[in-house]
Amino acid sequence: MQQTIRVTVWCEHNQDRYEPVSLVYPHGMHEAIAEGLRQVSDFQVRTVTQHDPECGLDNELISSTDVLIWWSHLDNNDLPDDLADRVCSHVLNRGMGLLVLHSAMFSKPWQKLMGIYPQPPGWGSFRTMPQGERQRLWVITPGHPIVQGIDACIEIPRDEMYGEPLLIPEPDKTLFISWFEGGDVCRSGCIFERGNGKIFLFTPGHETFPIYYQKEIRQVLKNAVRWLAPSGTGAFQPDVPYRDGTPKENLQHRL
Amino acid sequence: MQQTIRVTVWCEHNQDRYEPVSLVYPHGMHEAIAEGLRQVSDFQVRTVTQHDPECGLDNELISSTDVLIWWSHLDNNDLPDDLADRVCSHVLNRGMGLLVLHSAMFSKPWQKLMGIYPQPPGWGSFRTMPQGERQRLWVITPGHPIVQGIDACIEIPRDEMYGEPLLIPEPDKTLFISWFEGGDVCRSGCIFERGNGKIFLFTPGHETFPIYYQKEIRQVLKNAVRWLAPSGTGAFQPDVPYRDGTPKENLQHRL
Amino acid sequence: MQQTIRVTVWCEHNQDRYEPVSLVYPHGMHEAIAEGLRQVSDFQVRTVTQHDPECGLDNELISSTDVLIWWSHLDNNDLPDDLADRVCSHVLNRGMGLLVLHSAMFSKPWQKLMGIYPQPPGWGSFRTMPQGERQRLWVITPGHPIVQGIDACIEIPRDEMYGEPLLIPEPDKTLFISWFEGGDVCRSGCIFERGNGKIFLFTPGHETFPIYYQKEIRQVLKNAVRWLAPSGTGAFQPDVPYRDGTPKENLQHRL
Amino acid sequence: MQQTIRVTVWCEHNQDRYEPVSLVYPHGMHEAIAEGLRQVSDFQVRTVTQHDPECGLDNELISSTDVLIWWSHLDNNDLPDDLADRVCSHVLNRGMGLLVLHSAMFSKPWQKLMGIYPQPPGWGSFRTMPQGERQRLWVITPGHPIVQGIDACIEIPRDEMYGEPLLIPEPDKTLFISWFEGGDVCRSGCIFERGNGKIFLFTPGHETFPIYYQKEIRQVLKNAVRWLAPSGTGAFQPDVPYRDGTPKENLQHRL
Repeated sequence: MQQTIRVTVWCEHNQDRYEPVSLVYPHGMHEAIAEGLRQVSDFQVRTVTQHDPECGLDNELISSTDVLIWWSHLDNNDLPDDLADRVCSHVLNRGMGLLVLHSAMFSKPWQKLMGIYPQPPGWGSFRTMPQGERQRLWVITPGHPIVQGIDACIEIPRDEMYGEPLLIPEPDKTLFISWFEGGDVCRSGCIFERGNGKIFLFTPGHETFPIYYQKEIRQVLKNAVRWLAPSGTGAFQPDVPYRDGTPKENLQHRL
Repeated sequence: MQQTIRVTVWCEHNQDRYEPVSLVYPHGMHEAIAEGLRQVSDFQVRTVTQHDPECGLDNELISSTDVLIWWSHLDNNDLPDDLADRVCSHVLNRGMGLLVLHSAMFSKPWQKLMGIYPQPPGWGSFRTMPQGERQRLWVITPGHPIVQGIDACIEIPRDEMYGEPLLIPEPDKTLFISWFEGGDVCRSGCIFERGNGKIFLFTPGHETFPIYYQKEIRQVLKNAVRWLAPSGTGAFQPDVPYRDGTPKENLQHRL
Repeated sequence: MQQTIRVTVWCEHNQDRYEPVSLVYPHGMHEAIAEGLRQVSDFQVRTVTQHDPECGLDNELISSTDVLIWWSHLDNNDLPDDLADRVCSHVLNRGMGLLVLHSAMFSKPWQKLMGIYPQPPGWGSFRTMPQGERQRLWVITPGHPIVQGIDACIEIPRDEMYGEPLLIPEPDKTLFISWFEGGDVCRSGCIFERGNGKIFLFTPGHETFPIYYQKEIRQVLKNAVRWLAPSGTGAFQPDVPYRDGTPKENLQHRL
Repeated sequence: MQQTIRVTVWCEHNQDRYEPVSLVYPHGMHEAIAEGLRQVSDFQVRTVTQHDPECGLDNELISSTDVLIWWSHLDNNDLPDDLADRVCSHVLNRGMGLLVLHSAMFSKPWQKLMGIYPQPPGWGSFRTMPQGERQRLWVITPGHPIVQGIDACIEIPRDEMYGEPLLIPEPDKTLFISWFEGGDVCRSGCIFERGNGKIFLFTPGHETFPIYYQKEIRQVLKNAVRWLAPSGTGAFQPDVPYRDGTPKENLQHRL
């Protein structure tokens, strides 16, 4: 019997309260993202926003979350450090999965987990045009669970360009690389493992375009949730004595 | 509904036909390995040996195998190259999982997939003593599926020492590192991805000791089979036109 | 005092003997590649071709080579296996550097070292047009020695497209990612370490375009040679006894 | 002509002011570490301590440091966060090398760069005994510059045990794995690249034993400094227009 995966979609919910973004996402970006995931019977999906108490990251909620999805942009710096650290700790220790979307690559939880907080200047690039530009996300690893059901590439008609060189540690695996009409490239789907937890950076998703309604993007998010779910307890039992039998309580300390 | 995983246990079945190894493994090492896996209801387990037609690697069998487990030793060089290549191709292209046990680190399929065939001299070490020596396999990645149910380390009372420097590419992840009573270490559990397939090297298992009956070793093998099973079709559909719409048949060729 | 780096440029020297390629490379591609490297005072550069005795890979030459540069295309399959294995062995054991150019990604030494020989079908893509197409190689790792002196990207006006998904193990680092005018991407500069040796795959360089004369490409090749040169002896001295002092000759064997 | 490498040895200089540590390191641990490096003619070595103004990390000093060596223990938490961030920024952006010694694996600069600050409990292990225990650091990568001149392993007669599972991202490469007399193992020499900078974690070096006087340890530190020195400017020049020539100032923004 398959176990339910408890997903929490977290969004800052700022720009999507006002036009023009609210025209694209009338119920907020979190609800559009959640809608796609609710089609999966063994996902139990909640949404929270930065406006909720404790920025939507209270202990009970986060402790009962298997996979946390994060979209943020303008309010990245308003997240208190201790709440960002709480997210990191659940990834590292409890193995909570983290899905980092678009501008969340400038959020504190992501940057802290990658060792790039605060990010120095001079890294990455972007190009924002009202009409957007075409993006093709090429599949680099056809056998990976996150790309199942996806053709050779996903074509997004209009998106913002996010480009290299991203300031990220070498990914465990690069699943997607994006081609942009304007002449740039981006490692747009990358996985990392940190402590007991898995992390997926997925860079498309500018707020002014209906990207989180696109069928292939929803497929990737579904696949990603399943892959990100913690695979085990990660429980750690240090009951191993010194080799000559000296009582371990005298000798062995876990940090 | 969980899908059945089709496991094939392949052994050279040479030393285990004679004493003293046959005293430890009266039905062959393959049957001892298979016995542990048959406890899992969604595993469908077959055994073959190098004595079978086409060395047990006929097309029908290998095409219907999700995970191939490989134990070999004295007869590594007798495996025809084209059969080794067949194994590699199913890993790379179809995503068949490969579990490489003990001296199979000198087998052709493993060495070809790692890019170390034929292996140059001067790498690795071993120490074979009649009484064996104690080995502790420390868990390095507590959150990984392959180590679930395992304590901080597995203690094997008596085994042969296999030690560093192994001539292997840097693993995607090192799951176990072994401590040997005699003063050596070994990266004893390592995972790799190649093409669409996953590979797990697990170094304990000298033929003269009852290691494949040990509860924790069987737990690792069960976990490994589940992790190694292919996660998707890896199907590759190159139906992507040149950006200006030029018919792709004129421009685009897959290799 | 800086030590001389002994570079051997190996080319199959087939198409560049005839028009139209010979119009671009009148002295052969190997001489154009060598010309750029001969500008560096501490490089000692030789050229050989597949037409030379032992395909230009006799023991004396390869044993006195620090970095081997390889361009091949139509005649990949004509290289005898034992000569390919000789190249691999010098990389793995002696630490000879290997620079793999363009279609040499279908050569035996490269594929054997990557564990993808013989390569199964269905991987990679290409698009060959008489007029070529624009390629931009974006720098992903600005701090790496191989990209020093290079701007944010290298623009090649006309090249053949080589695209993903390449069947390669996850690189140690991806240094360049290419954008192609026609809508594709490619991990065009990737580094790998295998045994004691370093390997650099650099995918631009179709034979009908004057790419190996381009200033930035020559800069990358120079940087790469310096980075690929072996950093040490890699000598391996297993003089370590069993921990209780048992004479090591009884216990310790190197493979 | 070889360029001078500017090395700064940073120590907290607490325990080594008092007995018994001061008996082992009468001039402080930093001076013992520096002494070994001063034997190299092209190294320019300075020492600072946490007692100096700005904890020894003023802008002028750090801006003129190519490689920073860090030993700390009891006072890790007293380092102000902004000074730790300053160190990280010089690694990421300017490519300053960082050598992390022993208990500095609990220092802020290291933990922030690894994405494990603040470190959750339950990771790693140690065993501190007055008499210490034997440690053998096995060389895993014989061809790497950092292990040149080192035999198959380094034997330290007495050290504190630091053991797995360390909470670290998978290293780019594991150079040393330690065997401890008491039955544990540790990835004791690991390299990482972050942004433009290189990092080396080297875990031996308990303060009560004369480890930084040991010839082989000094050899590793010398090798490491040379490897850690920044290889290039990492300068980043984003002068690349939109593909159709639209003036880049309208379209292209670096972050």
